[in-house]
Amino acid sequence: MKFLLSNDDGYFAPGLTALAEALSALGEVVVVAPERDRSGASNSLTLDRPLSLRRAASGFHYVNGTPTDCVHLAVTGFMPDSPPDLVVSGINHGANMGDDTIYSGTVAAATEAFLLGIPAIALSLAGRPPTHFATAARVAVDLVERYRAQPWRGALLLNVNVPDVPYAELKGMRVTRLGRRHKAEPVIPASNPRGETIYWIGPPGAVQDNGEDTDFWAVAEGYVAVTPLQIDLTAYRQLQFVTEWLQG
Amino acid sequence: MKFLLSNDDGYFAPGLTALAEALSALGEVVVVAPERDRSGASNSLTLDRPLSLRRAASGFHYVNGTPTDCVHLAVTGFMPDSPPDLVVSGINHGANMGDDTIYSGTVAAATEAFLLGIPAIALSLAGRPPTHFATAARVAVDLVERYRAQPWRGALLLNVNVPDVPYAELKGMRVTRLGRRHKAEPVIPASNPRGETIYWIGPPGAVQDNGEDTDFWAVAEGYVAVTPLQIDLTAYRQLQFVTEWLQG
Amino acid sequence: MKFLLSNDDGYFAPGLTALAEALSALGEVVVVAPERDRSGASNSLTLDRPLSLRRAASGFHYVNGTPTDCVHLAVTGFMPDSPPDLVVSGINHGANMGDDTIYSGTVAAATEAFLLGIPAIALSLAGRPPTHFATAARVAVDLVERYRAQPWRGALLLNVNVPDVPYAELKGMRVTRLGRRHKAEPVIPASNPRGETIYWIGPPGAVQDNGEDTDFWAVAEGYVAVTPLQIDLTAYRQLQFVTEWLQG
Amino acid sequence: MKFLLSNDDGYFAPGLTALAEALSALGEVVVVAPERDRSGASNSLTLDRPLSLRRAASGFHYVNGTPTDCVHLAVTGFMPDSPPDLVVSGINHGANMGDDTIYSGTVAAATEAFLLGIPAIALSLAGRPPTHFATAARVAVDLVERYRAQPWRGALLLNVNVPDVPYAELKGMRVTRLGRRHKAEPVIPASNPRGETIYWIGPPGAVQDNGEDTDFWAVAEGYVAVTPLQIDLTAYRQLQFVTEWLQG
Repeated sequence: MKFLLSNDDGYFAPGLTALAEALSALGEVVVVAPERDRSGASNSLTLDRPLSLRRAASGFHYVNGTPTDCVHLAVTGFMPDSPPDLVVSGINHGANMGDDTIYSGTVAAATEAFLLGIPAIALSLAGRPPTHFATAARVAVDLVERYRAQPWRGALLLNVNVPDVPYAELKGMRVTRLGRRHKAEPVIPASNPRGETIYWIGPPGAVQDNGEDTDFWAVAEGYVAVTPLQIDLTAYRQLQFVTEWLQG
Repeated sequence: MKFLLSNDDGYFAPGLTALAEALSALGEVVVVAPERDRSGASNSLTLDRPLSLRRAASGFHYVNGTPTDCVHLAVTGFMPDSPPDLVVSGINHGANMGDDTIYSGTVAAATEAFLLGIPAIALSLAGRPPTHFATAARVAVDLVERYRAQPWRGALLLNVNVPDVPYAELKGMRVTRLGRRHKAEPVIPASNPRGETIYWIGPPGAVQDNGEDTDFWAVAEGYVAVTPLQIDLTAYRQLQFVTEWLQG
Repeated sequence: MKFLLSNDDGYFAPGLTALAEALSALGEVVVVAPERDRSGASNSLTLDRPLSLRRAASGFHYVNGTPTDCVHLAVTGFMPDSPPDLVVSGINHGANMGDDTIYSGTVAAATEAFLLGIPAIALSLAGRPPTHFATAARVAVDLVERYRAQPWRGALLLNVNVPDVPYAELKGMRVTRLGRRHKAEPVIPASNPRGETIYWIGPPGAVQDNGEDTDFWAVAEGYVAVTPLQIDLTAYRQLQFVTEWLQG
Repeated sequence: MKFLLSNDDGYFAPGLTALAEALSALGEVVVVAPERDRSGASNSLTLDRPLSLRRAASGFHYVNGTPTDCVHLAVTGFMPDSPPDLVVSGINHGANMGDDTIYSGTVAAATEAFLLGIPAIALSLAGRPPTHFATAARVAVDLVERYRAQPWRGALLLNVNVPDVPYAELKGMRVTRLGRRHKAEPVIPASNPRGETIYWIGPPGAVQDNGEDTDFWAVAEGYVAVTPLQIDLTAYRQLQFVTEWLQG
């Protein structure tokens, strides 16, 4: 079995190393990840300049681009004749749940694989900063072994968030939907040394919807949250309303 | 009525100027857009450095960040006490339809407004390159006048694509769903002058699903395509399958 | 007479516009400047990606690169068959004197022209922020008229700093050497919203050598400081010492 | 003895690792280098955003900035109470000789140390790509041992270029001046996949002045070239001419 690994924290991130070590027991591992931290990159693609792929001393490959670039380049340019069976993105340093998912570069790397027809898992370790990478790595192994025993028929995209606890303390896995947050906190103004106002993006909003079927709830309760994702943003339930609205 | 305008082509883009001129007849216009072309930025947020907001000679404001940064900063930091009634992002130079929507910075700017509770329209002009900005600007006016006559109760997020033809040749508006493409073309390898291999992101795939209810179909037939979007990526139809799969 | 203009503040900077307007009375003006503020860029060259040259509504051209890139691309790629007679870089927003000169992108743009065999002037307006752009623009006209009356035989590189006062208050021009500063102030530590330490580059050191023949002295006294520059960094006076030192 | 090491190829570059290993036998080694390849960065300083300093698994520190930023931050912010006795920048992958010196980030890192009052050596290994890092590392040891035996009284800035041959094949050291090149080759036009023209910075010009006292000559003949540098760009020999010229 061949795995392609990526992330958004950069090719040198401990979470990625832990994942690569764990999965190399189950098959061939190829790593193509960003050359620097690209957290918050979402699905951004680099269109205005070409990309380079280089190999680090660790054997990992790095790209001067986004997580989406990495998977796109790896699948269509670097290993086009022997595509991966599964793409795993992570282990992200921090959770990717609820609304935050749309900003995540880790989820975006998995999404790009899914768009290219390859099954994909985005794997994040809750905790700020997280410490139990071994837990998340073992969850990856569990999921891959499950997948080997019973592959999906088509490509699936799973967003997996793991509580930052020892593996033995996990309560199990829960299939969840994405929760919702209140709107984000405002930007945080500050001054640079020349007295000019600058702004930092602030923290996400507080959790608003953490019902029992959400990823927020599951992780808070000690479960691994497994959320299947799709990429059709159409608001089907509003088609009728908008049709009537346009007709006046 | 107060409008906040943004885009992903940069604050100097002709499409943005055309939009600002058209909407200034209907209310107050504030422009906060990226300082340089950020096409393909998706929902990326700048987390590793602070942002600056500057004012150009045109009166437009520009930010050294992404389209999402621009709207986030404008709404939560620049005009927090008098938020806009409507955010319009565009006029994008080129279409944003089907799967491409997840990569679009123009759609992302509108999405950020929607997440902050503000009604938002992403407006794109098909054509490579597009020429009839006046058409898209007039469509914006039409939609805003419609909105003034009959506001939405909550925030809505509309993705609007306009055929690149004179306004009189438009066949009308159609409410659509996002179409689907085949997977993207592979990266395009090339060499830099030092003989190293570099890769350009290739073009999107050919259209795969352009049924009569899609944005692809509508624009191809001369209609303005109006697609309501949502931001919950949960694949609800797969919750049952994944639950069973995990249980083995 | 044909002028190539550039700067490091970006193609939209008021100082550049003032310079272009003033020199267009004396000949043909071509502007190729960075697409965004690149103050502090020094002689940096972009080697890891290609450059694009675009034309703004103002007729100015902008490049997604450094000041050095701009002049290099303009002279060798954009106007290779009709090279400029003179390159003028500026009007920089702020002085470029003494040790600071080695960090300046404005001086670097002129230096690149000089290395390509073209006479060049770097023009900076002291003042934080500066206000009398008309003064510096008129100094540029004075220097160009002088040059037309009596051209240099080979290429020369002049670093010109103008006091931020009305033209009538200038005391004249002085040929100067670069002064010296004390070493720079330390970096300024701060915290980002996540509690991580960040560092801002601090202000330059206080002036150490502002003898009567220096640019620091001239500008402080109300004179335009004109310093001829060269680009050979060899410390000729130390060749003997280092030779003996190596021999032990 | 305490060493601060930096470079412009990035903290992961084999040349830097070789240098750190060699010098750790002679004293304490602190490494602060750019997080990514910044070749061609010259003396550029990052003024528009703050810098972060992080520690890699190797113990090396990396900064999201230029070589100049790295040395500036290290000396004034990271180790202000125990400044290094000597800064060594390199081992650069490729030569830094003649006119090219003004573009070099490796030389710039050493220059920044020198401006801060600290003795500094820029060390480059000729060869495209270079292979004999052990040779350059041993030259560094030779120079440091020489320096320990006979320290300079004030700060000195040495630009050292090493032929890419086994150490035993070196012919010795030569104190040199910087040679000169013909002007650079033109930019190299190409097309991106959208058919737009792009430009790559071309190679340096051919060597023009490689007299027996130059670095070009020394390295070509198998000698280590040691060039003392200074940072006063004033063209003293032209002060008289420019004075007369201004007087008309």
